[in-house]
Amino acid sequence: MEKFFVLSTIVISIIAFAFAFWLYSWVSKQPSSNKKVASIGELIRKGANTFLKKEYIVLAKFTGIVAILIFIFLPEPIWKGKILDNLTIFIAYLFGTGLSALAGKIGIQVATIANIKTAEAAQKGIQPSFLSGFRGGAVMGMAVVGASLLGVALVFLLTKNTTALLGFSFGASSLALFAKAGGGIFTKTADISADLVGKVELGIPEDDPRNPAVIADNVGDNVGDVAGMGADLFDSNVASLAAALVMAVALGGVDSKNVMIVFCFAAIGLLASIIGVGTAKMGKKGNPTHALNMSTYITTAIFIVLTFLATLIFKFEWRIWGASVVGLLVGVVIGITTDYFTNDERKPVRNVAKASESGPAFTIINGVSYGFLSVLPAMIGIAISALAAYKLCEPLGPNYGMFGISMAAVGMLSIVGMIISNDAYGPIVDNARGLVEMGNLGETALEITDSLDSAGNTVKAVTKGFSIGAAGLTVIALLGAFMSEVNTKAGEEIIKGFDVMDPVVFFGLLVGAAVPAVFSALLMLGVNRNAERMVKEIHRQFQEIPGLIEGKDGAQPEYDKCIAIATTGALKELIPAGLFAIVITILVGFIGGVKAVGGFLVGNIVSGLLLALFMSNSGGLWDNGKKYVESGNCGGKGSPAHKAAVVGDTVGDPFKDTAGPSINTQITVVSLLASLLSTIFLALSIF
Amino acid sequence: MEKFFVLSTIVISIIAFAFAFWLYSWVSKQPSSNKKVASIGELIRKGANTFLKKEYIVLAKFTGIVAILIFIFLPEPIWKGKILDNLTIFIAYLFGTGLSALAGKIGIQVATIANIKTAEAAQKGIQPSFLSGFRGGAVMGMAVVGASLLGVALVFLLTKNTTALLGFSFGASSLALFAKAGGGIFTKTADISADLVGKVELGIPEDDPRNPAVIADNVGDNVGDVAGMGADLFDSNVASLAAALVMAVALGGVDSKNVMIVFCFAAIGLLASIIGVGTAKMGKKGNPTHALNMSTYITTAIFIVLTFLATLIFKFEWRIWGASVVGLLVGVVIGITTDYFTNDERKPVRNVAKASESGPAFTIINGVSYGFLSVLPAMIGIAISALAAYKLCEPLGPNYGMFGISMAAVGMLSIVGMIISNDAYGPIVDNARGLVEMGNLGETALEITDSLDSAGNTVKAVTKGFSIGAAGLTVIALLGAFMSEVNTKAGEEIIKGFDVMDPVVFFGLLVGAAVPAVFSALLMLGVNRNAERMVKEIHRQFQEIPGLIEGKDGAQPEYDKCIAIATTGALKELIPAGLFAIVITILVGFIGGVKAVGGFLVGNIVSGLLLALFMSNSGGLWDNGKKYVESGNCGGKGSPAHKAAVVGDTVGDPFKDTAGPSINTQITVVSLLASLLSTIFLALSIF
Repeated sequence: MEKFFVLSTIVISIIAFAFAFWLYSWVSKQPSSNKKVASIGELIRKGANTFLKKEYIVLAKFTGIVAILIFIFLPEPIWKGKILDNLTIFIAYLFGTGLSALAGKIGIQVATIANIKTAEAAQKGIQPSFLSGFRGGAVMGMAVVGASLLGVALVFLLTKNTTALLGFSFGASSLALFAKAGGGIFTKTADISADLVGKVELGIPEDDPRNPAVIADNVGDNVGDVAGMGADLFDSNVASLAAALVMAVALGGVDSKNVMIVFCFAAIGLLASIIGVGTAKMGKKGNPTHALNMSTYITTAIFIVLTFLATLIFKFEWRIWGASVVGLLVGVVIGITTDYFTNDERKPVRNVAKASESGPAFTIINGVSYGFLSVLPAMIGIAISALAAYKLCEPLGPNYGMFGISMAAVGMLSIVGMIISNDAYGPIVDNARGLVEMGNLGETALEITDSLDSAGNTVKAVTKGFSIGAAGLTVIALLGAFMSEVNTKAGEEIIKGFDVMDPVVFFGLLVGAAVPAVFSALLMLGVNRNAERMVKEIHRQFQEIPGLIEGKDGAQPEYDKCIAIATTGALKELIPAGLFAIVITILVGFIGGVKAVGGFLVGNIVSGLLLALFMSNSGGLWDNGKKYVESGNCGGKGSPAHKAAVVGDTVGDPFKDTAGPSINTQITVVSLLASLLSTIFLALSIF
Repeated sequence: MEKFFVLSTIVISIIAFAFAFWLYSWVSKQPSSNKKVASIGELIRKGANTFLKKEYIVLAKFTGIVAILIFIFLPEPIWKGKILDNLTIFIAYLFGTGLSALAGKIGIQVATIANIKTAEAAQKGIQPSFLSGFRGGAVMGMAVVGASLLGVALVFLLTKNTTALLGFSFGASSLALFAKAGGGIFTKTADISADLVGKVELGIPEDDPRNPAVIADNVGDNVGDVAGMGADLFDSNVASLAAALVMAVALGGVDSKNVMIVFCFAAIGLLASIIGVGTAKMGKKGNPTHALNMSTYITTAIFIVLTFLATLIFKFEWRIWGASVVGLLVGVVIGITTDYFTNDERKPVRNVAKASESGPAFTIINGVSYGFLSVLPAMIGIAISALAAYKLCEPLGPNYGMFGISMAAVGMLSIVGMIISNDAYGPIVDNARGLVEMGNLGETALEITDSLDSAGNTVKAVTKGFSIGAAGLTVIALLGAFMSEVNTKAGEEIIKGFDVMDPVVFFGLLVGAAVPAVFSALLMLGVNRNAERMVKEIHRQFQEIPGLIEGKDGAQPEYDKCIAIATTGALKELIPAGLFAIVITILVGFIGGVKAVGGFLVGNIVSGLLLALFMSNSGGLWDNGKKYVESGNCGGKGSPAHKAAVVGDTVGDPFKDTAGPSINTQITVVSLLASLLSTIFLALSIF
């Protein structure tokens, strides 16, 4: 019977791929004629592909080394003779990295076409322009979720081995760690440098083609926000499914109803997203924000109804259905409260804009304060959904409580296809805006893409809150999976929990809590060093290329040099942060054993959620605060308040697009690593 | 036998008071003749006393209400008939608040004399000037530690009741919560406003007497950094002793060797501080930083030797001695690593100064990054000392591990008398610098006070790292005390630990982790609102008072109006933050019971340590970064880098002097409150 659900999942994944292909063709067929736009678009596409290629070469080396280590040591050292087991995990790991890389590549492919189409469609009106942007993003959404379900289902079907599932998930997230971090460093290096020299020093507009960093900036949107974000959510989705399946199998074997419900709900989530994407459109008078949010709500409703029916038909446990619905609804609530802190019609953004009149220090102090405040509803939301899901499922039997939490995470992530579509929409229309500006497509088109872009920013806040919430629940579930793995490996229930009064657990807890802070710091310092290099290059070009600054015909900036700097620097700077997270996990395991690792994961989750929420929300707030001033408030463009708001926005850039979202991935990687290495920590540790 | 140690403690406390009185007389007898300095000094003294008076009136109301609630409900509702028990805790609580208030008052009293003496002594040379400042600070150090030991010893001697001890400690910390937060808001309101209008808008120097906020700024140093800091460390010291005694009594009753060792080591710590303060002096060529640090190291050495002898003579357990020494040494190490991140001869400060050349956004991004990095060594230090202390004492018997941690906290705080002396030295010499400037005491005197001030800033970083570390260990010990109280009250060991896999514990953990962030945000928003009011007032005065801006004779700013704004605002703004922390603790207790509270405390500790370290260190770093630029680097005063560095310093002000250090107190208050209410949570809770 469980095969029916696994195979259905595979079928729906393939439908999603087919739908993605249809969307891709649709976008490709949209008219485009402007040569200037085409040539700039080509520059962006080339730059993005160059970065991706270089990044994948670096990552291939890294994953190659990891894969060999996995082959030698996991699940048990190879000299113990079970070479087939090692080979299984080795292949599963590589499959995870491969699918993740593929999803990123597909995203870039369509995004760098959709941006051109969206820009040109803006000349005809907001409706066609919106649709190009949205459907371009949806290709990514469908591809990512299709790939993650397909991968999980195939690995499960072929191996029936939970360690292989964890290996697959670790492959996805170890790639995501570097893709998100590398892309995040690239995009903010370019963005900050372009703004610093262009807007601040020279006072030329955003996306001015004279600016040598402008193409790099647009490339950054694609490699950071499209490919990086896709890898990140691919990773979260796979991890939530893997955690749920590990526990489902531990509860009742590979063919239990628990396994069925995981696949069934995941497949329904994807189906709901397909319908949501397919029906999304904007009314004639409608605004894009409304259209995007509406499709999210529709998807949510479809998921709830369909899973209700499935539970009825297949006689699943209602309590598990309840846990999934709680997860999803809390996700929506977190999204809405996040919106409060980053929406320019609300108090926080307006207060920060007003505070900017007193200078940049006040922009920062207020933004940090509201960022700190913003963590409360999300933390409480995650806490309540975990508690509710646990208590709902606890009566089903021992260990069902933790399984309930994992199903809440699956529920929250069920509509991830829709979330990614909305998320990828943002950088596409942002790029389109740049193309309209650089291609001189006219004021109306600029206004249209401006309004599409602004909707992207607003929706981004909601989806980010959503994905951090989902990551929170997922890693709690992974903690359960970790314990489950340890006990399975040890052959007895040696760990019943992690008692914080146990000094070894507490030791892990404190160290784990410091990790997301250090990880963020390393990434941001990387952005900074890299931006310094790029600013120097921009200055050089403005000095050495005659006529560039005046915008004379024929005076062409050397865009590729800026792209090269961002690429090389990003790849160089992402290594220390990623290695730090991995090495410290292993160290804690060797020092304190599995108990210390349990504490370490908890500390990591708690401080990771706190910092990720803080940085994402304050970053979004500063961004919208600046836009609020630019739209004529508090003195408008060029006023002292505007200058201060720009400082806030610049600080917020690495917060929200480099460090904040990378923390999600860091937590997941560390959690999966801990599960995979549990046998080794059991055997070798000081305490 | 335990009486011998309690009485010895009382005797040494009285010696400390006598020594404080001698120091006070010595400072008072130092010559002062300059009328202008005297009149400005008088303005500062009056302002500080006015604030303190108003604050104490507000706090009297608050503590009055709390005291009545305590009387009615604790340890059991009064209608259960044990009215004497309720009365005991009621009195202990009021005694705690009273002693804390007294320590603050003494500190202000001497600091507002010592600043004048230090200023005038600067005309004679650095040695006498240093001694005035240091001995002024030492009065505070001796008074605070004397009062805390005296209070704990008296409460213990008279009641032999651990709940009364916790009540006493709660009194100390509930006052400290508001004193630190209120003083912190006051001082940064004044500091930021004075800088914003004076330095940034008008370009007049710091401490320029034309600036209407300049006296308020100096008052702020006293009420925030002297009185507030004193209340904070009084609170930490009392809490660490209370936690150790609660566990000592639970382990072996009120007359056990464990009780003796707590009093013995605490008394030796005070003795060591007395000797350290008494012998502190600066060589002719010596620099003040060296002199301050030297006296800390001497005190540390004396403590280690004397406790070694005591352990030998009284046949205490060597393992417990080891735990205390580990605590103290780790404290010193944390101090040294903190220094790395805030010392202007090291990379972090210099990099931030250099980054300022690219504009304020880079000052902030770099400062935040280094601030995040700086948490790692301290978190690892606390983690290792807790683990080591636990493992050292574990073989002594069940529950001895946790007692070991509390003794590590006692060890770390043993030299707190010295730490406070060094800490209070800072604001005194800062004030003295202001008086030299305003009283025109000449360039040499200004240089001398500048160098004394700079030493104060450097040493402050070390002492802050120290006090956060100590607070960390103390609250871990308080967690043990909480569990011990719950089990004692329940009459059986109903709680063996707090398992994070228990969803109720995890629920508490997530909510608790959000609290320090929200608490900090409320305080910083308070500073901001208050600063806005004061900036308006300063603008008004410069506009309305003829000749003020040009510095004409007779054109006198209305200093008192600025003081009044800072006072009223601070008292208004501190309430929401304090209430929030208290109310949410009670809510979590009623929802999830003692287990959720356990998780809540852990989350609170972990995120509190993280944020306190981050904010204190990044604040110190920005402050010294600005000073580094001002001393002629990266373009020096007036350069773009300087402007950016000033933005960093302004952001860092509420970080390091309002929010960061208040978090310590917030954690302690919440931990003590939880212990006190444990009976009620046991009886009434949803889960």
